[in-house]
Amino acid sequence: MSIPTTSKQTLGIIAGRLAIPTLVLDPDPHCPAKQVSVPPPGTAHVDAVYGSNAAQGVSRLAAQCTVITPEIEHIDADALQGHGNVQPAPETIRLVQDKFVQKKHLKARGVPVCDAVGVDTREQAERAVDALGLPLMLKRRAGAYDGRGNFVLRELRQLDGALAALGATTDGEFGLYAERWAPFVKEVAVMVVRDVHGETRSYDPAETVQRENICRLVLAPLRAADADVARARAVAEDAVCAFAGAGVFGVELFLLDGGAVVVNEIAPRVHNGGHWTEAGCATSQFENHVRAVLGRPLGSTAMVARCAAMVNLIGGDWDFDNAVDIAMGVKGASVHVYGKTWRAGRKLGHVNVVADSDAELRARLRPILLAIDDPDVDAYAPDSPERGVNHAFPLVSIVMGSKTDLPVMQKAADVLDEFAIPYEMLIVSAHRTPDRLYAFAQGAEARGVRVIVAGAGGAAHLPGMVAAMSALPVIGVPVKTTALSGVDSLYSIVQMPRGIPVACVAIDNGMNGGLLAARMVGNSGAMSSWMQNQSESVALDPRK
Amino acid sequence: MSIPTTSKQTLGIIAGRLAIPTLVLDPDPHCPAKQVSVPPPGTAHVDAVYGSNAAQGVSRLAAQCTVITPEIEHIDADALQGHGNVQPAPETIRLVQDKFVQKKHLKARGVPVCDAVGVDTREQAERAVDALGLPLMLKRRAGAYDGRGNFVLRELRQLDGALAALGATTDGEFGLYAERWAPFVKEVAVMVVRDVHGETRSYDPAETVQRENICRLVLAPLRAADADVARARAVAEDAVCAFAGAGVFGVELFLLDGGAVVVNEIAPRVHNGGHWTEAGCATSQFENHVRAVLGRPLGSTAMVARCAAMVNLIGGDWDFDNAVDIAMGVKGASVHVYGKTWRAGRKLGHVNVVADSDAELRARLRPILLAIDDPDVDAYAPDSPERGVNHAFPLVSIVMGSKTDLPVMQKAADVLDEFAIPYEMLIVSAHRTPDRLYAFAQGAEARGVRVIVAGAGGAAHLPGMVAAMSALPVIGVPVKTTALSGVDSLYSIVQMPRGIPVACVAIDNGMNGGLLAARMVGNSGAMSSWMQNQSESVALDPRK
Repeated sequence: MSIPTTSKQTLGIIAGRLAIPTLVLDPDPHCPAKQVSVPPPGTAHVDAVYGSNAAQGVSRLAAQCTVITPEIEHIDADALQGHGNVQPAPETIRLVQDKFVQKKHLKARGVPVCDAVGVDTREQAERAVDALGLPLMLKRRAGAYDGRGNFVLRELRQLDGALAALGATTDGEFGLYAERWAPFVKEVAVMVVRDVHGETRSYDPAETVQRENICRLVLAPLRAADADVARARAVAEDAVCAFAGAGVFGVELFLLDGGAVVVNEIAPRVHNGGHWTEAGCATSQFENHVRAVLGRPLGSTAMVARCAAMVNLIGGDWDFDNAVDIAMGVKGASVHVYGKTWRAGRKLGHVNVVADSDAELRARLRPILLAIDDPDVDAYAPDSPERGVNHAFPLVSIVMGSKTDLPVMQKAADVLDEFAIPYEMLIVSAHRTPDRLYAFAQGAEARGVRVIVAGAGGAAHLPGMVAAMSALPVIGVPVKTTALSGVDSLYSIVQMPRGIPVACVAIDNGMNGGLLAARMVGNSGAMSSWMQNQSESVALDPRK
Repeated sequence: MSIPTTSKQTLGIIAGRLAIPTLVLDPDPHCPAKQVSVPPPGTAHVDAVYGSNAAQGVSRLAAQCTVITPEIEHIDADALQGHGNVQPAPETIRLVQDKFVQKKHLKARGVPVCDAVGVDTREQAERAVDALGLPLMLKRRAGAYDGRGNFVLRELRQLDGALAALGATTDGEFGLYAERWAPFVKEVAVMVVRDVHGETRSYDPAETVQRENICRLVLAPLRAADADVARARAVAEDAVCAFAGAGVFGVELFLLDGGAVVVNEIAPRVHNGGHWTEAGCATSQFENHVRAVLGRPLGSTAMVARCAAMVNLIGGDWDFDNAVDIAMGVKGASVHVYGKTWRAGRKLGHVNVVADSDAELRARLRPILLAIDDPDVDAYAPDSPERGVNHAFPLVSIVMGSKTDLPVMQKAADVLDEFAIPYEMLIVSAHRTPDRLYAFAQGAEARGVRVIVAGAGGAAHLPGMVAAMSALPVIGVPVKTTALSGVDSLYSIVQMPRGIPVACVAIDNGMNGGLLAARMVGNSGAMSSWMQNQSESVALDPRK
């Protein structure tokens, strides 16, 4: 069983920053957490087991501490009982240890979870397949960690192999449970912190990318419709209400097609899905855990960076030191090396990356994912597209009523190319594709778009309608018409009623639409240089 | 002599995060740095002095380490000599220790510094007053720290007291120097990092606020004209070229009226003026120091937060624990408690604060400065002004050609009040006050303004001229005229030439000007709610 000693170490460091002495219970006298925390005079770390038969070790710890907080759920919960201030509560540890019990507990409290049945015999396994269908998740009820103890059963003939892989050898004592497969569109992690007074705060939901049941990559904030993000957060906070005690709870959820959310499982501790908060938030999950269990004021869970990600460095067939050096050179990256001996499949470190936009985040992730041979690099951190191809993570969305507007709107795109601002260009017609208009305007912000440039001619409704359905700033470009030379387009765009503003530029001036968008998304340094160049290029003698 | 052991501790923690073992030389076997770093098997921290007679201790350290980095300049530089890889170089330590020698060294290298003369006798002190005028800085050449060892001589009759306070008792052996007073408008700190290969990066210049020669508050980025900020950075980088070796150098400068910059002094180490980088940047000064001296890739020195500040917690007549609790509850704040025994005037901790704007930063600083009884709280973290009063740190600047535009533009202000967005309202006439226009447009961004809303009527030049002189997005509000009903204003504002965009809204629609500004500065959640309310307030039966 792998022990996430590094999180324990970080908790110790955070406590140290607040001048709070920490003692560590761990069988290894040289474990990372003990390396960063010298016990105050008269106290000592405890070198003892905690997985089972931990009573003696916990007693020695408890005799020296005012608060005990388990940092792993695979711990002797009985040993914690009766030792005063244990956060979260020993019964919480007990409840989550058996994941089938955890699931039934959540379901009984009205928290949405996947249907599950206990599996202790081969016959029960077959019945589970009949009842819940394929693919089917088979999981160990206890002791699973980092994907070990999970099996995705895709066909019935895999069953014997699955049972063997899960160590279910004695019929009647399999200790497994089967869970209906969740057809998720995204896996999500929400870190929730509750203090000893019951105050609860949650961090922004983040997308987790798992492969072989191990978390590889976490991306925050979650890019999904606002309502779905809010639902994930609410469900996570609800789920934590089912458990007693203070501290951080890592809630793993599935976001299903259509926006429904189900809880996968809950860890009553800081969680790999929340490591990004170290770089992305002013108060990390680690610091809020320490504050929560000590009854100190909670810190804000709001993001400080606009976008954040975490990459796990998991031992593989690539050069670790080289990858660390590459990550160190990436702007916005901070590298954590755990100092553990290399082993294939072992979490050896992680890299946090922050950025000002999704596009920038993905561009920063790319060399790191390439360095660790991540097979999904092109999916999560694609190369920038060629000129003329829509960016997968645009900051600016250029829309127009029809293809005839392209010559005008292309000028906006050209400017954004010049400023290396990621954009997309779409045809959205207010009159001919109203559904598409609605979906576009409602969804743009959730995709990370920050400014919309809309071009239209005549009864030019597109910019105003987009502005009516999105809280983003909308720039309108009136396209010249034959009948009224674009004065019709201009009036339609600029004369918006009170409440719904459109930023109108000159007739046919797509270039100014692009420049205005560039001013809005920032980097005024680049804009100042551009203006300086423009000044210098002005011919000062009209006869030459 | 106070030892900044906390910085040493942070360096050890950072090294630990990269799995690099650290040994510490300090006479105190329980000093903070030793508390967070357990030596690897077969090695040991060194309990020995370093200020003088450090040869033996340094030898013991050097025998166990591949790199030695002094974290304080008050160290036996001779003892470091000949010990292989010492970063920065021992001669750098020697050069900076005697601040008068440091100053002459900088001057000889062409770095701008204040005029200074050595003072070893009372007569030399009097001659210095004649030569350099009053007020005059009298400083100890060596061993000064946190303001001790400095005296501002305002009148000649203070001289004897000053000499006594500086310990200058033996005529002929004062060991002082006198420095011409710098009539600074701001004190500035720039952290510069240079790696072993000579690559140099600097952090954003920050304003430092000193009182009684002790740093109280640091604010980043420095709010000054772009050219002045660039000059401060360039001078700091130049100054560091005068010293050999790798690591972070803390450069203290004075920004004089008119934009000139002079170097005050340089510390060849991480510096209190750079603690804000822990929260404000992806790679802090501490981490870049570790990387630099080890020859690992440097991290980015760019800010991750838009605004950052650091408050020193200096022992005073206020409740320390209460202040820490208050700071913990402030959004964007991270608290560092050094665990030192309380002593008046002692640095006991610091609080970093990040925010998305100057106004937000100052609002967050206010409760912290109040909790530590900072007498300058109203200067640096004023209360929000009442409605109708310009904010000292506006995000939006509302300008208009004349007072007759106020009824229209007041609507923009009302909207910003509703969204709690800090703004200012000014009269700037393109035609009647062109100088003011120029100064306003050129200076707005350096003051932290992010959007300009400009109202004008008739030959409405104001929005376009502001847009031509600032890289910020400019919103134009055409004000209705009697002659042409505002169509003249509209055309003047919207029909801008290619290259200089103005975001034009409807005639007399100041409200939409404000709403567009609100959309641009962000907080789309608030805008969505506002739009939702507007939807719900629409009467759906025209007869009622």
